[in-house]
Amino acid sequence: MKMYLDCIACIMNQALRAGRFATDDEIIIRQLLSDVGMMIKDIPMEASPPEIGGIVYRRINSIISNNDPYMDIKDANIKKALSIYDDIADFVDNSESPLLYAVKAAIAGNIIDFGVNKPFDIEKDIINVIKMDFAVNHFEAFKSQLDKAEYILYIGDNAGEGVFDRILIERLGKRVIYAVRGIPIINDITLREAKMIGLNDIAQIVSSGVRSPGLIMSEANEEFVSIFDSADMIISKGQGNYEALSDNKKDIFFLLRAKCGIIARDIGVNEGDIVLL
Amino acid sequence: MKMYLDCIACIMNQALRAGRFATDDEIIIRQLLSDVGMMIKDIPMEASPPEIGGIVYRRINSIISNNDPYMDIKDANIKKALSIYDDIADFVDNSESPLLYAVKAAIAGNIIDFGVNKPFDIEKDIINVIKMDFAVNHFEAFKSQLDKAEYILYIGDNAGEGVFDRILIERLGKRVIYAVRGIPIINDITLREAKMIGLNDIAQIVSSGVRSPGLIMSEANEEFVSIFDSADMIISKGQGNYEALSDNKKDIFFLLRAKCGIIARDIGVNEGDIVLL
Repeated sequence: MKMYLDCIACIMNQALRAGRFATDDEIIIRQLLSDVGMMIKDIPMEASPPEIGGIVYRRINSIISNNDPYMDIKDANIKKALSIYDDIADFVDNSESPLLYAVKAAIAGNIIDFGVNKPFDIEKDIINVIKMDFAVNHFEAFKSQLDKAEYILYIGDNAGEGVFDRILIERLGKRVIYAVRGIPIINDITLREAKMIGLNDIAQIVSSGVRSPGLIMSEANEEFVSIFDSADMIISKGQGNYEALSDNKKDIFFLLRAKCGIIARDIGVNEGDIVLL
Repeated sequence: MKMYLDCIACIMNQALRAGRFATDDEIIIRQLLSDVGMMIKDIPMEASPPEIGGIVYRRINSIISNNDPYMDIKDANIKKALSIYDDIADFVDNSESPLLYAVKAAIAGNIIDFGVNKPFDIEKDIINVIKMDFAVNHFEAFKSQLDKAEYILYIGDNAGEGVFDRILIERLGKRVIYAVRGIPIINDITLREAKMIGLNDIAQIVSSGVRSPGLIMSEANEEFVSIFDSADMIISKGQGNYEALSDNKKDIFFLLRAKCGIIARDIGVNEGDIVLL
């Protein structure tokens, strides 16, 4: 996805949110806003938004001298997600189409984000999202490519969401390679969290080497690029990966919830819609 | 009101909105975002938000070489407001307390802003705001100070809103000095619009000399400062004037709708609430 002017203006909001998340020290956050402000003039409009996000979030980590400020929240989200894993899996398996509902569960898992909701509310919220109709629904193409695929490259997004990726991967019935980020970036999934979730029991985990909150191909390591190039089917989760890969020439299935108005407009759906594109 | 970190982050959103309003040229807007980004490091936290707003909006006007980009929208808003003036005045006069309802009408007038709503909807929206209860209601103190006051300094806010200020001023029954901004800044009222509305027929209009979207005392001219210092009663309209004057030692009646979450929190009310403080 191209960079919109809105994305540039939004970077300051993201820096504030991330800064507040990482520290209570207003002077550090003030410094961060100044630093990010200075970066704005150098943002190339041909970059994709997660590329810039990567620069901003790495800058935050460096200012606060913590290379994984989201570790605790990732762990809490995974714990919360695991506590409702069986219920959601049952709901999927008792639906009219377990594969379709597993796709939706994997998308719905994205709502376990920075929230502090109680597990009970989260379960209700996730089931509500699963019950939504797709705004873009290429499920028939998804199923037909899945039938033909030898192995699938599955590009992960947030850490807690990985628990719901597991629900989908278990129902794909194919060999899956699950790609995680190369370093901790925001609350995105890395090798550490993939193992916590047990994704390594059902898929081969690879690090993409990417240091941004979206699969920027120019940051990816050789191993990932080679898997990407030869994969029979690619599943990309979440907004950040969509932003980074939507202009890629490979056929990619994007599973996401459009939480940002600009991304929604780019896809041609409404904010809050779920998409299988 | 002090500057919050949120206000700093919000400046970029404001610059984008104002830039889009002023021009369709994305390259100019991109340049504006870069310029504003560079300014962020120099924003003193002890400044008040409209002071920074003034710098940003004047920068926009200079980039687009137009010192009043909001002229057309101000004129359209005034026309729209004048078209429902009689209906709103009747509604106020037929209420249980015309003075209280005139105060609310003056606050409600603020919703004629950048919108493109039809006159009918605007009238309905304004009456809905008038019917709201105050979240902070110092009307008794307002009435008692009004009874004693020889003359009142009334500090205007947006241009279209001035039409509804007229409804209130006509019902104050006292000599009123109405202060407008010193230069066009966003859609704030200046001498030009005050005359269009006919406020000069019912009040003495003075320019505060202020160049920002809020009454920054250090920018005010001598004439205004002298009126301010000797006024028996001061009425300040809108958020920008509240941000600039809330820490002033004089007793000031702030009439506003809390449209911004940060200002609402500063006052201790909810976003959308109406306040007579």
